[in-house]
Amino acid sequence: MTVALGLASDVVALTRALVDIPSESGHEAPLADAVEAALRAFPHLAVDRIGNSVVARTELGRPQRALLAGHLDTVPAAGNLPSRLQDDRVHGLGACDMKGGVAVALRLAATVPAPTRDLTYVFYECEEVEADRNGLHRIAAHHPELLAADLAVLMEPSDAGVEAGCQGVLTADIVVRGERAHTARSWMGANAAHLAAPVLQRLHEHTPERIVIDGLEYREGLNAVAVRAGVAGNVVPDECVITVNSRFAPSRSPEEAEAYVRKLFPEYEVHVTEVVPGALPGLDRLGDLVTALGATPRPKLGWTDVARFAALGTPALNYGPGDPTLAHTAGEYVPVEHLRTCEERLRRWLSP
Amino acid sequence: MTVALGLASDVVALTRALVDIPSESGHEAPLADAVEAALRAFPHLAVDRIGNSVVARTELGRPQRALLAGHLDTVPAAGNLPSRLQDDRVHGLGACDMKGGVAVALRLAATVPAPTRDLTYVFYECEEVEADRNGLHRIAAHHPELLAADLAVLMEPSDAGVEAGCQGVLTADIVVRGERAHTARSWMGANAAHLAAPVLQRLHEHTPERIVIDGLEYREGLNAVAVRAGVAGNVVPDECVITVNSRFAPSRSPEEAEAYVRKLFPEYEVHVTEVVPGALPGLDRLGDLVTALGATPRPKLGWTDVARFAALGTPALNYGPGDPTLAHTAGEYVPVEHLRTCEERLRRWLSP
Repeated sequence: MTVALGLASDVVALTRALVDIPSESGHEAPLADAVEAALRAFPHLAVDRIGNSVVARTELGRPQRALLAGHLDTVPAAGNLPSRLQDDRVHGLGACDMKGGVAVALRLAATVPAPTRDLTYVFYECEEVEADRNGLHRIAAHHPELLAADLAVLMEPSDAGVEAGCQGVLTADIVVRGERAHTARSWMGANAAHLAAPVLQRLHEHTPERIVIDGLEYREGLNAVAVRAGVAGNVVPDECVITVNSRFAPSRSPEEAEAYVRKLFPEYEVHVTEVVPGALPGLDRLGDLVTALGATPRPKLGWTDVARFAALGTPALNYGPGDPTLAHTAGEYVPVEHLRTCEERLRRWLSP
Repeated sequence: MTVALGLASDVVALTRALVDIPSESGHEAPLADAVEAALRAFPHLAVDRIGNSVVARTELGRPQRALLAGHLDTVPAAGNLPSRLQDDRVHGLGACDMKGGVAVALRLAATVPAPTRDLTYVFYECEEVEADRNGLHRIAAHHPELLAADLAVLMEPSDAGVEAGCQGVLTADIVVRGERAHTARSWMGANAAHLAAPVLQRLHEHTPERIVIDGLEYREGLNAVAVRAGVAGNVVPDECVITVNSRFAPSRSPEEAEAYVRKLFPEYEVHVTEVVPGALPGLDRLGDLVTALGATPRPKLGWTDVARFAALGTPALNYGPGDPTLAHTAGEYVPVEHLRTCEERLRRWLSP
């Protein structure tokens, strides 16, 4: 049975209602059903369902189209259901990441029937898991026309501030080779773990760059996120693999980011396992949006789906309620004040 | 049905017969049954069965008692069964480690009814697995009187040469701590993997000692055998654990071996997880045995059960057919010449 969501009532009640419909990645159907049913009630919206993602659009023939997007899924529960309201904060799984943002977008979809620009609302599945399951990725691959827009707002938690662009991410394995031997005769081999010391030392001494774009400082990072060596308790390991995670400014292409890491470790095997470009802030292409949101833009350091819009040629920013550092924590919450501010500012921007 | 072993025939045929009764650790019963039944046929032997270990003793009232020991178990099969004889080598699982040595001891048990000293033969289970399952350990714990002897020969593969004593083994975890952070804001944390570089570098630069005892050089070793760090692909790890394996000369006590490692890493957490003492060569306590075996003693670098005899106060050496570096390899074999040499030399030592 599909839960009836009251989109017309209040953003706090709606956030709680969304939290109370569990939607861990891969299990978004009940929430997608509820969202789809609620949106179909409004004649000013054309609604499409793709998998467990829902797209709702106005078709007013406005010269410009804006897109508001939020993912429906959450990380696994951590004893943080159902929702509760305390100290003017909505607590509970996904409250911050990002059912608060979804609630704001749903409120606008329901209550702004004649916006100043046409609007596309995208509520999508599987943001928290592998990229090829991501609902936005799937819509872009199979129904790109549904994502056509002049600018996009991704309602990821950003402290109700504007976080512009995002950094790219590169993951690579640095492989250090040695020669296996019995530890009782270790001089017969070469210990790959010992030989890995210079790699870790170089990472320790490396000073990442700070790159300013549109007045925003993107502070890069290069970190070992895993070190693996070991065959058995009495064997000199013949291989040590250091997995590094690079966060690079959106002005670098994936190729440049890869070259940067390779140049730092010229004498080692470097296997790039993943590289995704960032998104330039593109503030000059966002028109009056940033002004309307009334916040000084900050650079987004983590990777978000704004990069997918950048890849489609659509300027995008992150703007949503909630502290991003609370995402994925058991104690996540979203301040009521953020919910109201985000709704109010977007409503003002969209209203005649 | 118990397989009938022909102890009186030939050491090569007997080695093959032993290889052809599979006896991976924990599954020695059929082989122990066959060994027990074969030994009980000889009235000059008193036979005891403890678990899947078999002890056979002469009771001739000689002033001295020698002990010959070999383990019945093997590592898991690796497509190397049944046995085959090729190029004067017996190939097959356990041929080298150590059914060849067991065959030599069984031959002597059967065919030297009136040795110059009393003899205790120990054929034991579970040498290749955790220490508390080891048959020799269990006999020492529950029936120590069965192991009483003036000297012991452990028939581990030693190239038909004499390998005296053995080194001790210490295993310790060196823990390097940092502070967790999201890799997009890595400067908020401290990368434990990066901070581990000095530990690995120090291991790389460390020159283990060479300690001479009774004219034998025990070459020590200190190696990282495992490195583990990593929380998730986007998290700065807050802990890096380096497991080190130390091989220390038998002149050091476990306490001294531990102090040695701690002194090398004074600024890190060091958790000793295992330490077993080695065995001094004790050549002066072995009487005419070394001369009779006609080989120049070498130091044993790997740990073997001779250390258990040392702990009981019994001088012991390793002497057996087969190249020790072939142990645990799929291609292990034992040269026929080794089998015959070992049998002949021990027979000469034991015969009037």
